[in-house]
Amino acid sequence: MQWYFVAVLLTVLTSSQGILTTLSQSNGKYKYDYATVPFLAEVFKLAVSSFFLWRECKKSPLPKMTTEWRTVIFYPIPSIIYLIHNNVQFATLTYVDTSTYQIMGNLKIVTTGILFRLFLGRKLSNLQWMAIVLLAVGTTTSQVRGCGEASCDSLFSAPIQGYMLGVLSACLSALAGIYTEFLMKKNNDSLYWQNIQLYTFGTIFNMARLALDDFRGGFENGPWWQRIFNGYTITTWMVVLNLGSTGLLVSWLMKHADNIVKVYSTSMAMLLTMIISIFLFNFKPTLQLFLGIIICMMSLHMYFAPSNMLVDMPVTVKPDEEREKLIEVSVDRRAHS
Amino acid sequence: MQWYFVAVLLTVLTSSQGILTTLSQSNGKYKYDYATVPFLAEVFKLAVSSFFLWRECKKSPLPKMTTEWRTVIFYPIPSIIYLIHNNVQFATLTYVDTSTYQIMGNLKIVTTGILFRLFLGRKLSNLQWMAIVLLAVGTTTSQVRGCGEASCDSLFSAPIQGYMLGVLSACLSALAGIYTEFLMKKNNDSLYWQNIQLYTFGTIFNMARLALDDFRGGFENGPWWQRIFNGYTITTWMVVLNLGSTGLLVSWLMKHADNIVKVYSTSMAMLLTMIISIFLFNFKPTLQLFLGIIICMMSLHMYFAPSNMLVDMPVTVKPDEEREKLIEVSVDRRAHS
Repeated sequence: MQWYFVAVLLTVLTSSQGILTTLSQSNGKYKYDYATVPFLAEVFKLAVSSFFLWRECKKSPLPKMTTEWRTVIFYPIPSIIYLIHNNVQFATLTYVDTSTYQIMGNLKIVTTGILFRLFLGRKLSNLQWMAIVLLAVGTTTSQVRGCGEASCDSLFSAPIQGYMLGVLSACLSALAGIYTEFLMKKNNDSLYWQNIQLYTFGTIFNMARLALDDFRGGFENGPWWQRIFNGYTITTWMVVLNLGSTGLLVSWLMKHADNIVKVYSTSMAMLLTMIISIFLFNFKPTLQLFLGIIICMMSLHMYFAPSNMLVDMPVTVKPDEEREKLIEVSVDRRAHS
Repeated sequence: MQWYFVAVLLTVLTSSQGILTTLSQSNGKYKYDYATVPFLAEVFKLAVSSFFLWRECKKSPLPKMTTEWRTVIFYPIPSIIYLIHNNVQFATLTYVDTSTYQIMGNLKIVTTGILFRLFLGRKLSNLQWMAIVLLAVGTTTSQVRGCGEASCDSLFSAPIQGYMLGVLSACLSALAGIYTEFLMKKNNDSLYWQNIQLYTFGTIFNMARLALDDFRGGFENGPWWQRIFNGYTITTWMVVLNLGSTGLLVSWLMKHADNIVKVYSTSMAMLLTMIISIFLFNFKPTLQLFLGIIICMMSLHMYFAPSNMLVDMPVTVKPDEEREKLIEVSVDRRAHS
């Protein structure tokens, strides 16, 4: 399977996620406990990965599976980072409003690039760095609040702590992604075996979260497992399946592609969601959405297009074909500058 | 003189132009007849060019001057294009409001690129095309009306004629620039001699405009030359000198650089004006201005940075020293053109 096919599929599914989640609400409220959705998605991913691993085990060669505890202990770490991230996010939102938080969220694109370089040691060309910054600028542009919208001057007016926590949140979010990529590429274990380890801890952490919610609520409604499907509709199940599927695709991308591909996928999904919302939810199309789409498309092309498609490469000359051709090249360059 | 030095000077002066013009108003109104400003600027440019040509004539070799009527008749054409452009602009403004007109004005950047390719036959790399589109997107982004501003939903609501005229206006504006570049580069006449021809016609067209205004007004206030300096202050004179100087710099750039350099200069000037206005006129800095600046800076870098700075070039094998020298020459040429 080609990585760009998976990336496009991830874009479509991530985009559907936002739309399905909106459709699963009734009168703007969730009739079900939203915290059950990621839990069930983890269970779904665990089941799918187990099935595929079982199938792999019937074939030869057998899938590679490292079961040493030295390796296994790395797998809860992404869940732990997400846990910290969620708490930082919660703290940030006490200082800034949700739409400022959403704008700051685009920083994640740049921090992912930086950690990608620092921790995974992957080199990017000058142009690719520019593409990454432009992607963040493009997604931000599409979110600029238009005239006539509420909560006008809140963007630069939050206390400094809010912005610092926003940056921390962007770093943690990027770190979780980069760490997962490191984990998936660290050895050539079967992807499904790696997934099983990842999702087992994911399931445990999500269960713990549901239990903690119960504890905080004083078990007023009974334990979570007794009311887990309360208020579930077909759409809610689709949200669960969709979230699970995007998780599996991200995991595949971490193994066979990288975090930057994922970041492009999810950014494009954000724009796609806005375009679909124009038709589905009567969102007013804005000039800034249009500009944001152009910027992100340019960024995509800049990052992924082969260099010789973007700039005129100097013709590589064989020693015997020499000077004549070289002069041509230099004249050519002049005409292009 | 290096072209980029001239380009930076043009940026600073163009930016001052907007600020000086605002400062020359009292209570938001002009106390002088604004139409006299471009006329006097043309006279200033004519005087300066004549002085420099006279100085050139005292030296040897004598400056090259083609005086055939076949050549001279090309020089009123830019003035004629501007005349048509001004009328189209006037017509456009009957359909769209000024801020929509300003937004559409950014199209000029893209039309300049297209005419540059079509009429002057200059090839641009894929990346340079993207840079041009991004420059237009960046300047537009900086102008997106923020929340709380008046005249909200007028951007997509004007009649179609308004948008078509806006496109025509952008084409005419680009055409005038491209034609001037063609004119200045057509032969290797002295720049000052070319300027004199250009500005003589410019002066005549501006005089005609002042006379026409008088005629339309029924000569109520007497002929224009009797009240030309009415309401002039030091600032008004600075506006005149500034406009004249920017004209001379543009003319120099048309001869020694090109229209794209000019377009970058004036776009950067627009952003610089907005930044200065924050301090001088208490403009509220917006997120979209910040984003627009980043986009335009990226675009500048993409367009002008040498390819090997942007992408990782395949290592070229150097057969001998001669070849190395040749590459040096070509790089050098590029930097100066």
